[in-house]
Amino acid sequence: MKKLRKFQKLVEALELLPSVGKKSATRMAFHMVLKSPMDAMKIAHAIEDAVSSLHRCAQCGGLSEDELCYICSDEMRDRRKLCIVENAKDILVIEESGEFDGLYFVFEELGSPAIESLKAVLDKEPIEEVIFAFTPSIQHDALILYIEDRLQEYNVTFSKIAQGVPTGVELENVDTLSLSKALHERVKV
Amino acid sequence: MKKLRKFQKLVEALELLPSVGKKSATRMAFHMVLKSPMDAMKIAHAIEDAVSSLHRCAQCGGLSEDELCYICSDEMRDRRKLCIVENAKDILVIEESGEFDGLYFVFEELGSPAIESLKAVLDKEPIEEVIFAFTPSIQHDALILYIEDRLQEYNVTFSKIAQGVPTGVELENVDTLSLSKALHERVKV
Repeated sequence: MKKLRKFQKLVEALELLPSVGKKSATRMAFHMVLKSPMDAMKIAHAIEDAVSSLHRCAQCGGLSEDELCYICSDEMRDRRKLCIVENAKDILVIEESGEFDGLYFVFEELGSPAIESLKAVLDKEPIEEVIFAFTPSIQHDALILYIEDRLQEYNVTFSKIAQGVPTGVELENVDTLSLSKALHERVKV
Repeated sequence: MKKLRKFQKLVEALELLPSVGKKSATRMAFHMVLKSPMDAMKIAHAIEDAVSSLHRCAQCGGLSEDELCYICSDEMRDRRKLCIVENAKDILVIEESGEFDGLYFVFEELGSPAIESLKAVLDKEPIEEVIFAFTPSIQHDALILYIEDRLQEYNVTFSKIAQGVPTGVELENVDTLSLSKALHERVKV
């Protein structure tokens, strides 16, 4: 439909989203334009509103509406524990579990700026334990060693989240590495 | 992350899209806010632009930027053939095949308003053949009979697109009805 220029522009714009191909983008665009223009305008406004008011927290690198996010600025959190994650998204996931009440730090890319920001947190907060919550992989194990090495001057202990067999997944569908870890680090019952 | 109100509102808005659940919506929202705010603004503007300038064509019910769409208003099309589709989306699909140069009509819901609009097209255009391009199903076969019955007063022939085995799909993955149709309506080679 080469003549529907504004429709084509919308499809192309939607294709910029992660894991949205031409087919899904076209389906979304038709839905917005013909089925629910009101919802579409709601989405457009929510995007503008979110993009203009959300940014990274100056301390942890997570999502925030203010300079410091609601976790970093919450005096009730246990400031002796620092959980290092790969992505700002992971903070959301761990918070939803409700199992962690310490602080976070997003370590997105290798390099000295990230290390310097991390050191700034350790200088400021009374951190005693650094917990790595990365997806288990050889690359991440190397990254953990690298970060530990750079933080030698601090009096902190290091740990990483346990690797093993996830709940509700049949053994035949678990990767060999996780299964061997699970056997190796078996716990008494 | 109950404190990130504008982020949550964005996730909820994105969940209004077809086949977008909470997980995809959250992934999209993070991508927009943290990875590519420029793209996000492009999307927001494309939505506003498309929603405010696109609507249904007054004749065929397809997508249009003007009162009549570029197909209905194109004098080079073969106005003796009318292809009836279920959704405005299907016009796009058939146009991309490049195999049809007639007019279209979107017959979205059963009932007299749709029949009256269809009759208005037959009154206005020199239609000789009405081609049904519905997804093959018992319901659609019934709909075809219903429409044919309502158009008895017109001197037009009726046809529907051929049903059979699609290209590149292994026989074991083809549904029984299509396979039996394909056998029944086999063609000489």
